[in-house]
Amino acid sequence: MRDVSIVGIGQIPVGEHWEKSLRIMGAVAVLAALEDAHLERPDALYVGNMLSGQLSQQENLGALIADHCGLRGIEALKVEAACASGAAALRTAYIAVAGGVHDIVVACGVEKMTDTLADETTAALVSAADAIYEGEQGLSFVALNALLMQRYMHEFGYRREDFAGFAINAHRNAAGNPCAMFRKPITAEAFSRAKMIAEPVSLLDSSGIADGAAAVVVASTEFARAHGLEPVRIAASAVATDSVALHDREDPLALQAAHASAERAYAQAGLGPGDLDFFELHDAFTIMAALSLEAAGFARRGEGARLAKEGEITLQGRIPISTMGGLKARGHPVGATGLYQVAEAVLQLRGKAGANQLQGCRAGMTQNIGGSGAVVVTHILERVS
Amino acid sequence: MRDVSIVGIGQIPVGEHWEKSLRIMGAVAVLAALEDAHLERPDALYVGNMLSGQLSQQENLGALIADHCGLRGIEALKVEAACASGAAALRTAYIAVAGGVHDIVVACGVEKMTDTLADETTAALVSAADAIYEGEQGLSFVALNALLMQRYMHEFGYRREDFAGFAINAHRNAAGNPCAMFRKPITAEAFSRAKMIAEPVSLLDSSGIADGAAAVVVASTEFARAHGLEPVRIAASAVATDSVALHDREDPLALQAAHASAERAYAQAGLGPGDLDFFELHDAFTIMAALSLEAAGFARRGEGARLAKEGEITLQGRIPISTMGGLKARGHPVGATGLYQVAEAVLQLRGKAGANQLQGCRAGMTQNIGGSGAVVVTHILERVS
Repeated sequence: MRDVSIVGIGQIPVGEHWEKSLRIMGAVAVLAALEDAHLERPDALYVGNMLSGQLSQQENLGALIADHCGLRGIEALKVEAACASGAAALRTAYIAVAGGVHDIVVACGVEKMTDTLADETTAALVSAADAIYEGEQGLSFVALNALLMQRYMHEFGYRREDFAGFAINAHRNAAGNPCAMFRKPITAEAFSRAKMIAEPVSLLDSSGIADGAAAVVVASTEFARAHGLEPVRIAASAVATDSVALHDREDPLALQAAHASAERAYAQAGLGPGDLDFFELHDAFTIMAALSLEAAGFARRGEGARLAKEGEITLQGRIPISTMGGLKARGHPVGATGLYQVAEAVLQLRGKAGANQLQGCRAGMTQNIGGSGAVVVTHILERVS
Repeated sequence: MRDVSIVGIGQIPVGEHWEKSLRIMGAVAVLAALEDAHLERPDALYVGNMLSGQLSQQENLGALIADHCGLRGIEALKVEAACASGAAALRTAYIAVAGGVHDIVVACGVEKMTDTLADETTAALVSAADAIYEGEQGLSFVALNALLMQRYMHEFGYRREDFAGFAINAHRNAAGNPCAMFRKPITAEAFSRAKMIAEPVSLLDSSGIADGAAAVVVASTEFARAHGLEPVRIAASAVATDSVALHDREDPLALQAAHASAERAYAQAGLGPGDLDFFELHDAFTIMAALSLEAAGFARRGEGARLAKEGEITLQGRIPISTMGGLKARGHPVGATGLYQVAEAVLQLRGKAGANQLQGCRAGMTQNIGGSGAVVVTHILERVS
């Protein structure tokens, strides 16, 4: 198999794009990524998206976005893995380039969530959970995360204020990211006073509903070098799954798929948690950040939240997370999120992360989660020296 | 790249499965394919599906079906390309195995369309078209095909009775397929009298709404031989796209993506239309069958319908199509259809097509179309001698 790299990235600001259709958002991100890579026509386009059928009455996004980029004719498909759809599109692109089926593939993630009523969007999001055992029983995604957070607090003796560090770090970092949705730092007091959504999950534990699109261009590392491009190497690409329904797991607080996906990625890259300079994790809710840190080997069971309390996750900490705002504050346009994470990781590894630049960083991990940990896509990215 | 084969197939009868959920239909097909291949645990599962979010409020089908097959943990994703989602899942599996990223991958197509009101299903299907320029303007899929058929008749001087051969052939062949939905032959008189849906498309020009699931196991040909399996070789796998909206095409009667997809497949396989013993084409409507025959090089422009009139498409004809009933009579559970086509082609090439067996057949082509020709996935399958 060939060594694979990312040679271009594109992203539009996350927010409420009432003036831009789904297809235009996707096309803008794809064209920006191609321009960044100094390339014009990829062999294929894989689009990560979860909700376009339900919220925009539009499927067939692969062909649609390809055409609106001026790429009519190329291979184009949509990939769906709930909120992990973006990274799943990259996974598919990686497979095609690593195996030599294609030389240049664009992975694009796109989601439009704000043109519909919040109720409709919330209802559509539940389709990432088990429709029969969870969705039809009235559970929303906030409710599922509230169950997890409640159990975590009960089991390990945390109070809800102990999660404040995740939100504060995310908002602080978002302030330095021109593509972030919530660019305003928050205080511990604001976190304490935040409106309760589903006890103990408050507004400031939760990522917001948003529109967005991000894209990356994938090529062989050899191609990148031959064409004078600046590659960021994909040292690992891995997917693992778990039950979709929470009740079906032996231990709901152990994100088995996040663990398995990270372990596969570590084995593939020949690296461990100690070798990583940052971790773009899936902080759709603060509890997910805590559980992800544990599943990926950065903290022991029950100690993920401690990393936030002790400042270990900031840009200056032991393992910086959400370095450009994370899902919490950059925003979480679900099918696009995985590629925002990757684009941000590429910025860090290129040394182009602006005010949020980590010094001397050489390797980072991104982890995109679909459902309550049902499908997890992990990538490890490395600077090519 | 490695030579890739299909080593197992599974399908459930197409019909109204009110007693089976989406996940169970998918799991039954996957387990049947694995049993057929004498294998237990693939490396990955790619699920082709279009409508589960809109009609079953269920996304995340990769993880969900993997878990319900006892395959919790493996890599699993959903692939969507409108009505070509099934073949798109096979395309993704092919890429992973050809490139050596995975050794064994299951591609499964599944769709549940009959648990909802016909209006809801019809509305959801329009999401394969362009939501802004077609869907929101009130065009249904039947209406889009009626525009094409009307134009074709006008341009080339056909009457609607000239399309009868497509439906008669499909129903005749479905009678010999235990998995087909409409196993009753029809007459030219019945075709003439059929209820009009959207002039000139009648009920007997159209494939029906249905539930179904089909799956195939993909492995390297070398693996198949080493394990004493009976491989059917994937000699070509290709995808091409066109504009999603019909009005955006220079010539709406030329299915450019079907043409490009077939040409890519011919080049990859080193074969041409004259080398193929059958063609499982996408006869969602009779007009699509005529246009597909032209796009794939079996007839000149305006002469596709003539093949049906002259009996060239029957089991005894020059280029048999819909040999197990096609979309028209086996049924068209949209995201599953592409894998029914492939499973049926494998039966023909194994010599296991029962009453419908083509004598001495060595190579066949399947072509799965998403939207009105917006995305087209073509596979050429060959007996391994």
